[in-house]
Amino acid sequence: MRSDPARIGDAVAAIDTPALVIDLDAFERNLQRMADFARERGMRLRPHAKMHKCAAVALRQIALGAVGVCVQKTGEAEAMAAGGVRDVYVSNQVVAPHKLARLARLARDVKLAIAVDSIVGVERLAQAVREAGSTVDVFIEVDVGQGRCGVAPAQAGALARQVVAHAGLRFAGLQAYHGSAQHFRGVSEREAAIRHAVDVVVAARAAITGSGIACPLVTGAGSGSFRFEATSGVYGELQPGSYAFGDADYARNEADPHAPRFEQALFVKAQVMSASLGHVVVDAGHKSHAIESGLPTLWQREDLLCSGANDEHAVVKPRAAGAPLPALGDTLWLVPGHCDPTVNLHDHLVGVRGGLEAGRVESVWRVDARGAVD
Amino acid sequence: MRSDPARIGDAVAAIDTPALVIDLDAFERNLQRMADFARERGMRLRPHAKMHKCAAVALRQIALGAVGVCVQKTGEAEAMAAGGVRDVYVSNQVVAPHKLARLARLARDVKLAIAVDSIVGVERLAQAVREAGSTVDVFIEVDVGQGRCGVAPAQAGALARQVVAHAGLRFAGLQAYHGSAQHFRGVSEREAAIRHAVDVVVAARAAITGSGIACPLVTGAGSGSFRFEATSGVYGELQPGSYAFGDADYARNEADPHAPRFEQALFVKAQVMSASLGHVVVDAGHKSHAIESGLPTLWQREDLLCSGANDEHAVVKPRAAGAPLPALGDTLWLVPGHCDPTVNLHDHLVGVRGGLEAGRVESVWRVDARGAVD
Repeated sequence: MRSDPARIGDAVAAIDTPALVIDLDAFERNLQRMADFARERGMRLRPHAKMHKCAAVALRQIALGAVGVCVQKTGEAEAMAAGGVRDVYVSNQVVAPHKLARLARLARDVKLAIAVDSIVGVERLAQAVREAGSTVDVFIEVDVGQGRCGVAPAQAGALARQVVAHAGLRFAGLQAYHGSAQHFRGVSEREAAIRHAVDVVVAARAAITGSGIACPLVTGAGSGSFRFEATSGVYGELQPGSYAFGDADYARNEADPHAPRFEQALFVKAQVMSASLGHVVVDAGHKSHAIESGLPTLWQREDLLCSGANDEHAVVKPRAAGAPLPALGDTLWLVPGHCDPTVNLHDHLVGVRGGLEAGRVESVWRVDARGAVD
Repeated sequence: MRSDPARIGDAVAAIDTPALVIDLDAFERNLQRMADFARERGMRLRPHAKMHKCAAVALRQIALGAVGVCVQKTGEAEAMAAGGVRDVYVSNQVVAPHKLARLARLARDVKLAIAVDSIVGVERLAQAVREAGSTVDVFIEVDVGQGRCGVAPAQAGALARQVVAHAGLRFAGLQAYHGSAQHFRGVSEREAAIRHAVDVVVAARAAITGSGIACPLVTGAGSGSFRFEATSGVYGELQPGSYAFGDADYARNEADPHAPRFEQALFVKAQVMSASLGHVVVDAGHKSHAIESGLPTLWQREDLLCSGANDEHAVVKPRAAGAPLPALGDTLWLVPGHCDPTVNLHDHLVGVRGGLEAGRVESVWRVDARGAVD
């Protein structure tokens, strides 16, 4: 845990660099827009906390109507519960018995759900909840097009029968998230991917109900595709994460005119620390902002581009040769390539009220589940 | 700070996943080989702690003869000093007055050096040491080919005159590190790059000595090029970092037959958590191993390759279609694409003695400067 990069009441200029900064006004509008969207369509909203890893953010999402959060990891589930979240869904496979024991114990205190895609996973989970004397909701993950985890639809019936055979496991429905579709650039590409996902879900659901087992809920969707899941008539719960903060990669998606628009709310405040070679170098490299989905962009500096990043440096150049450059010591605001792994690099989220120019620090939130990879 | 992924005395099988694991036997051989190389050539060795961020590692390097460590960040310098390192060099520009004040205060307790590439940087540093009543060594960074920070050689004389004008600043020499050259694949390409760096250094040194100022030391070099700096007759100090741990990107370099060989000592222990779709998925994505320099390789599993990674998953496939796959729950050892940002994702380094198969946990070191981006 590093020392705080800012104190409440500080002017924006006093925030240390590099620091992860949230424009609270934009952030709150984002939360409200997604909450409104879900409510108006009668959808349950369960935002993904793998993105923000921050209980303070989760509690704000829940205050606006979210039923709880998703997480991917055992340590994230524990961090969210410790921060006051009462309904946590591990939307990912966990097969290590000692982790399942931790989750089964956690299920004594909070409403807990987990995804499975194997008989081994179900059996180990059943043993853990038996030993803990707890009950968990179980979603069967079906591969809806990403080709990573999940079963084929025809296998869902057998796996559901396995789940309902155990007293401590409540079969809750289908986990049907198409991760790669979130970043398909065209709206029609994303729509087509989710149309395919819906076909897969319908087949998997038929395999389950054909076994005489009810399928209470289909859960999935992300910030790039949620409109299509929401209007599918099949999904009942949405799991978007990135909408709350935004990133440069999502900004490259063609905007969906029928979905709510979200504003960029996440920034890395950086400082020019070298200007000796005809470009400038800021003090925030890829230990401060993840670049696996592309280099950061520069907020409201259309005249500049980031041309490269190393561990502790990012190089910034003018788009037009000979155009003026920032000076040594100047602040630049980076929009990270990918929000989730960027947040995971930082211990704190500095919340600014009143804009990045004239605003003040209103909050310094801990990234509770930073590094919770277990 | 997460809970420990292992306890001392544990069998390797008991280490949680994902966890960052050091093969201590290979690690110690690496440290010894570099220490021997430097000693035999009469070179000062100052390993770069931006890579390991761990005081326990730094103290072992110093016990074998290193003069101290390099770091890139103010927070790293503080973490190394807090961990017992008495000689720290910030081989990077710092221009924020509040950071310079922290460094000037630190210089009361440890031998401290810093790199500069601007008159503003020198003036602000001079003011900070005046206010702290301390003294720091100052290296002028010269751009030797990377084109990131540093001055052109002709400017080094004026900057050196600026440094020696201040009582609290000791002009210590030239910072001359060619970062990108470390990853040029061919030995002859790396050799040519350092030949160019030496030419630049010679010109910069002439500009300084022509001003009547002695240039006590040239410091630089990394794990891909150090043999060339060491035999240049110009460099007096080596700054390699990655040699201690290794990574998949360095492993792709053509090996230099005249330099010591280093062994892979850093691994991410991962577990197969899904096997439903004709490949396997492990529980370590790019929140556990940095992929900006390429995907991880699989240690001693030539039959397998990592075909992709997301935040919390990596997909592993057989190289030959239809070849057998690991089973659910099996352990795989990932060799990260890039060691520095991988270490920065973790709070602990688990040290294993006796090999990854049959060994035992001998140490659990804190990554003291994890997240010290300030």
